Amino acid sequence: MFVQEITIEECREALVRAGFGRLACAWENQPYVVPVYFAVDGDHVYSFSTPGQKIDWMRNNPRICLEIDSVKSPNDWTSIVVFGRYEELPDTPDYRLKRLRAYDLLQNRPMWWQPGSVAVANHDASRDFAPVFYRIKIERLTGRRGVPTPGETAVATRSQRTRV
Amino acid sequence: MFVQEITIEECREALVRAGFGRLACAWENQPYVVPVYFAVDGDHVYSFSTPGQKIDWMRNNPRICLEIDSVKSPNDWTSIVVFGRYEELPDTPDYRLKRLRAYDLLQNRPMWWQPGSVAVANHDASRDFAPVFYRIKIERLTGRRGVPTPGETAVATRSQRTRV
Repeated sequence: MFVQEITIEECREALVRAGFGRLACAWENQPYVVPVYFAVDGDHVYSFSTPGQKIDWMRNNPRICLEIDSVKSPNDWTSIVVFGRYEELPDTPDYRLKRLRAYDLLQNRPMWWQPGSVAVANHDASRDFAPVFYRIKIERLTGRRGVPTPGETAVATRSQRTRV
Repeated sequence: MFVQEITIEECREALVRAGFGRLACAWENQPYVVPVYFAVDGDHVYSFSTPGQKIDWMRNNPRICLEIDSVKSPNDWTSIVVFGRYEELPDTPDYRLKRLRAYDLLQNRPMWWQPGSVAVANHDASRDFAPVFYRIKIERLTGRRGVPTPGETAVATRSQRTRV
């Protein structure tokens, strides 16, 4: 396998196309990762979520990592990583324009569903499930691609295997 | 959408079956997430990697999060999360048995490839690309499932949308 860096332009195009990936946050150096749908606009990634651990942690520590990938096999893959900062878009007059922008972007994607209609089994019925809208400022964008070398297959024969 | 908790037994079965997911680590509260192949044995997840940022960060902070998922649509998905601790399996006599166990588990999976054959474009040729074998002690395992409510579709009509 040969590992190549991907240009920022390619990373950005892939991110816009994907609209789905995994978002990692961290609190007290414990990482946490979940799948997310999103939309990209310029240097921002927009999304929304029901309240919960992910939102609690990003409120406490806005540093996040968003990853998208396309993995065909262990030696044929693409992975793109965004390092960024969480910014909540609360339902207040100050955030009205940013929130409308998020809404415009998100409602045009197939990711859209009814965020207000979520019910969580066995949870406190009094808990607020109003969706939290947020955006992520893209601070760093990198990507790598694994390319099989000629004749290489995903499953090596026993004799080819590395000594352990 | 209705969100249900998944039992630990179901989580464990799904983890063993998957053998592929996203691994998040963190350093100075900055999370980092990448795709990984792995094999499960009891309370441990085994994998290997070429040296790099992920390994550097896990050596400095062994707290990790491993996530696997199956996402059909924004309201029809399963996501399983492992919180655990990184343990490196160095090529030393003390770790010989654990390393052999890792090798036995990993070589029987389709994930196996030639970890010693990786070349990285534009990197320092003197850098050591010998694979790093490691395992993760599973400390907490949780899972949730999003189930569409009757009549719900992935894309809501305009009139059904939540006010923003």
